[in-house]
Parts: sequence; structure tokens; C-alpha cells
Amino acid sequence: MASTHLTPEDLGTAIQWKAIEEAHERIRPRIHRTPVLTSQSLNVMAGAELFFKCENLQKAGSFKIRGATNAIFSLSDEEASHGVVTHSSGNHAAAVACAAAWRGIPAWIVMPKNAPAVKCRAVESYGGKITFCEPKVSARTETAARIQAETGARLIHPYDDDRIIAGQATAAKELVEDVPQLDAVLTPVSGGGLLSGTCLGAHGLRAEIRVYGCEPELADDAYRSIKSGTLQPLESSDTIADGLRASLAPRTFAILRKQLAGVLLVSEKEIVETMQLVAQRMKLVIEPSSAVALAPLLRAGGIPGLNQRLRKGRPSARIGIIFSGGNV
Amino acid sequence: MASTHLTPEDLGTAIQWKAIEEAHERIRPRIHRTPVLTSQSLNVMAGAELFFKCENLQKAGSFKIRGATNAIFSLSDEEASHGVVTHSSGNHAAAVACAAAWRGIPAWIVMPKNAPAVKCRAVESYGGKITFCEPKVSARTETAARIQAETGARLIHPYDDDRIIAGQATAAKELVEDVPQLDAVLTPVSGGGLLSGTCLGAHGLRAEIRVYGCEPELADDAYRSIKSGTLQPLESSDTIADGLRASLAPRTFAILRKQLAGVLLVSEKEIVETMQLVAQRMKLVIEPSSAVALAPLLRAGGIPGLNQRLRKGRPSARIGIIFSGGNV
Repeated sequence: MASTHLTPEDLGTAIQWKAIEEAHERIRPRIHRTPVLTSQSLNVMAGAELFFKCENLQKAGSFKIRGATNAIFSLSDEEASHGVVTHSSGNHAAAVACAAAWRGIPAWIVMPKNAPAVKCRAVESYGGKITFCEPKVSARTETAARIQAETGARLIHPYDDDRIIAGQATAAKELVEDVPQLDAVLTPVSGGGLLSGTCLGAHGLRAEIRVYGCEPELADDAYRSIKSGTLQPLESSDTIADGLRASLAPRTFAILRKQLAGVLLVSEKEIVETMQLVAQRMKLVIEPSSAVALAPLLRAGGIPGLNQRLRKGRPSARIGIIFSGGNV
Repeated sequence: MASTHLTPEDLGTAIQWKAIEEAHERIRPRIHRTPVLTSQSLNVMAGAELFFKCENLQKAGSFKIRGATNAIFSLSDEEASHGVVTHSSGNHAAAVACAAAWRGIPAWIVMPKNAPAVKCRAVESYGGKITFCEPKVSARTETAARIQAETGARLIHPYDDDRIIAGQATAAKELVEDVPQLDAVLTPVSGGGLLSGTCLGAHGLRAEIRVYGCEPELADDAYRSIKSGTLQPLESSDTIADGLRASLAPRTFAILRKQLAGVLLVSEKEIVETMQLVAQRMKLVIEPSSAVALAPLLRAGGIPGLNQRLRKGRPSARIGIIFSGGNV
């Protein structure tokens, strides 16, 4: 395990490998170990061997159940007794409601009042109690804080939380356990919970793996943050990848600065075409956010030094892609 | 292995368990061992524990590659030297073209001239040589016979062939290996290659498993054949399940008469609704034929004695469903 050689300083985090192993043991009985699928026709298109970690086939439809389950089952009985609260318009909301139901505690979910009806129904189907707020970041956090004060519920932040990051890290851990010789892993990036967890989960098993974040051009805050070396906010975004409209947090940014190989930007057209290609060739329904992690590999030029160019006369690169979810 | 107690008479076939094991060894390096997926929400809807064998994620997009690969790699070098020929408008055509390319021999595919362009492109992408014919059964078989005579190619029949049936049997074999305590397995039925193979693959490992065939109401020849005890032809059909428009053959009918628990009929409306449900809940693209195998479990009454009613006060039934393909 490579991370034994690395200090928290090197890793950009105090999260130990042991915390990721414990998270994995904690959530293993409750979640799917999702399959790693391959596609010969996509290998040909990418000029590389691709390995798809299918979190779109995960419980509650995305990787978010990993972090939510780890966080909620990490609480002591006393801490859990007043329930949990979070703010999210998407997959994290459903995941917290689902994991809270497994633990038998209430979950208050703050959602913007323009959240899609299908996302609200998912939360309600798991017994989550929705409170609507104005569609602004400040309204979300204020409403969640008010519910915390009123109920004593614990906040389960979508990504700025070590228990969440350790939980999300288990997806990459499983991927590298299944395909040990990976050269690189690509995941989408929004708040950075999955991407920073992927850095930790992959590098904990194999330090040489190059981890890339993939992001819509229309929501390029991670790209700007990494490039400038300072946390850059995302004001708002109309990207079709509705799961990728959040900004990095201090905790995730610190990990990414230390461990990331790069951020790759993707156009809206590429996102839509990649979703269609995956339905046609892989028979999988993936959400736009997931398509973002594959699209850069399908360009004529590929990713410099990784696929396509690397191919000439050398063995193909082995590249993992995390399909983050399937909730369209 | 139960089938050691059973004579060919009992099984309705001379195919030995050993032939299925050999088929599995032969095709294993070339095909996917497809995942068996589960869905809590579909379990609740069905009142049973469901296990989905995902042949929609198989190479060339369906289980057909199992039989085609077994048949083509069973040929001696001498037999294979003049290539293979088949007639099919769908998944078997692509599978034969694909397996022939792996073996490095030519594949002549006879297709009706009204075959969908997407199916033709799939065949061509694997290097298959298409000959179009009139859209009638007689024209197909005559054209294939002519090509056989001209080229010396071997005929790979879509289902009336022991090597094909033994190959298709490996899907159920893998399913029962992964989930040994199954009570029942449901598959779609058309020519009966998958269904008769499922009988052999399942009963070879566990004689108690009840195997059901599922069929569109608009293509109910298997239902009529089993009910009457004589092979009933299907004149033509407009079912949306385009993979299920063939009739049973003597070889598959003989196996089904001995081993089948029953044939379940499904409406066109149920097929469409089930495809949508699987995309939404399981994030999988399945073809209409695959939806036919799940639909009967989702009815209010379920299948008498299997799901729903069985549930009251008893443990849930464990039911396998073979998603036959994903080529929409």
C-alpha cells in the first residue's frame, strides 16, 4: 500500500488508508459491489483498454450511497438518535434518505423548490422528509442549519466531510482490486467528493495511477481552481450534467491539489453523444455526469500521453472510468 | 448433478451435461461472464427475490454469441475451412459474424431484405457478408442452401442444432452457479434455443428449478405447441419483440415438452412498460424480447404458486430472469 510512505502533507488530507478500509467494511453488507464492464468497440474507439466501474447500477442509482452509508453508520447511537439533515437536489439526497431508512432514523432533506419532481419522489420513496427552499446556496445552508437547530439532526454534507470522502473512495478501491494494473482513472468532478475519494482509493493501492477529473466546459470551476491554485467558485451553470453544478470545497480541493493528474473539459455536445453511445454499445443508462468521464477518451487526439498517441508501438493504456450514476 | 439420474428420454434430448461443460470451456475465453444483478425495488414489486442474468451486456449484445461461438469453434479445421452460413434477421446474424471473425473464417449471412439497417450494420461491422432475400421462411432457407452448395460453408442454424443449444445452456449454468438456491428461471422463447438450453443448464445443476418460457400474445406458438402437445407453426407476427417471431423446432420442442414448467403470455403494452421500468430502476437498456421474461412477475396476481401468493407467510421465492439481449 503506497500511502504508508506518504504523509498527510503529501496526500492533502488526514484521511488514513485505514479509514477507507473501515468504511468499506461498514458499507459492504448494504451496497452492491458493482460490476466492472468492458466494451471491445469502445476500446477500439479509444485506442486503450477501458474498464467501466458501474456505479449507475449501485443502490439508489449512484455512488452517493457509499459516502452516505459510511457517514450515517459511523454515527454513535446517541448522535444518530435525532436523525440526519442534508441539502442536495440530486443523488446525495436520495442516498441520505435511503441510508437513514436502513439505520431507522429520520432524514430531513433540504431541496431547492425547482428540483425535478422525479428527484423528490426518489427521496420520498425512501421516507425522506423534504423541506423546500429558494434555489440559492445561501438558502440551502440556512434552511439546513435551522432544521439542525430545531431537531438536533446531524448534518451530512454532500462532500466536505471526511466520512463521505472515505466512503466514495471505496468505488476506486474496488475498481483497482478488480483491475490491479490500471494506468489511469477518470471520474466526473463537481464538489469533488468522488474525485478526491478516487485519488485516495486508487493511490492507496497503486501510487502510479494517474487520476483525472472530468468536468463540463459550462461548469469549469475545478479546472480553474487547479490551474490557479486557489479555490474558484462556480456562480451558476446550465450544463445538462445536473450533478456537476457544485463547487469544490476546501477539503476536496486540498486532496486534488496534491494528487490529481489533471482536469479535462467536455462540451455539452460530447456529453449527449457519449450517453447515446453508451446506451447503444454498452446497453447502459448513464446520467450526463457519467458521460463526462468517458468523453475525453473518445476524441480524435485522445488525452496526450495516455490513450491514442501512447498506442503507437506501445502496449495499450489501461484506463478505469467511473460511471457515477444512472438517474436521468 | 441431477441429469446423471435422467435418461435422454427423460430430458427430451441426447445432449449430455458433459457437452454443456465442454461448450462452457470452449467459449469462456471469448465471451463475458455476464453479471447477475438485483433490484430491491423490483423485488418489492414482484414479491420475490429476483436475479437478472444480464446477457444484454454480453459481447455482440445478446446470449446468441454463446451458441454461435460454441458451434463455430466446434468445427474441425477442415470443416471450418470453407466458412459458415446462416439465416437470421437479428442477434444470431451478428453473433455468427462475430464468432466467425474470431475464428478467422468467412461468414455468409442471409437476411430478409426488410431487415432493419442497424442489424445489417452490426453484421457488416464484424465482417459478415450479407445476401438479401425475400422476407419469407422458404426464401431464407433456400438462399442459405444455395450458398452452402456454392461455397461449401457449414450451416449454423439459429436454434435447431445441438451445439447451439449447448452453448445457450451456459447462460443458465452460470446463473445457477452464481445463485444456487433458485426456485425458478424465466426466459423468453422464440425458436427455443435459449429456453431449451436454460432447461438443460438449470436442471443439470438443480433438478427442482421450474423453468418458464415467456412469449408475446402476438407470437404464441410455443404456448399453443406445449398446450396441444404438437408443434404449432407461427404464421407471422407483428409483435414489438422482433427477436421472438420464430417458431419452435423439433429439437427444441422435444426438450421443452419434457422439462418446461409452463409458457406465460405477455401483452405488447406490458412489454413496453417493462422496458421503461428496467431503464428507470435498473439503468439497463434491454430489448423487447428481454422485457417479456420479466413482465409476468410484475402483474398484480403474479405467477400462481410462484411469486406474490407464495409470499404470504412463506419465504420469498428466488427467481432468475435471463435478459436475453440489449439490441434495440
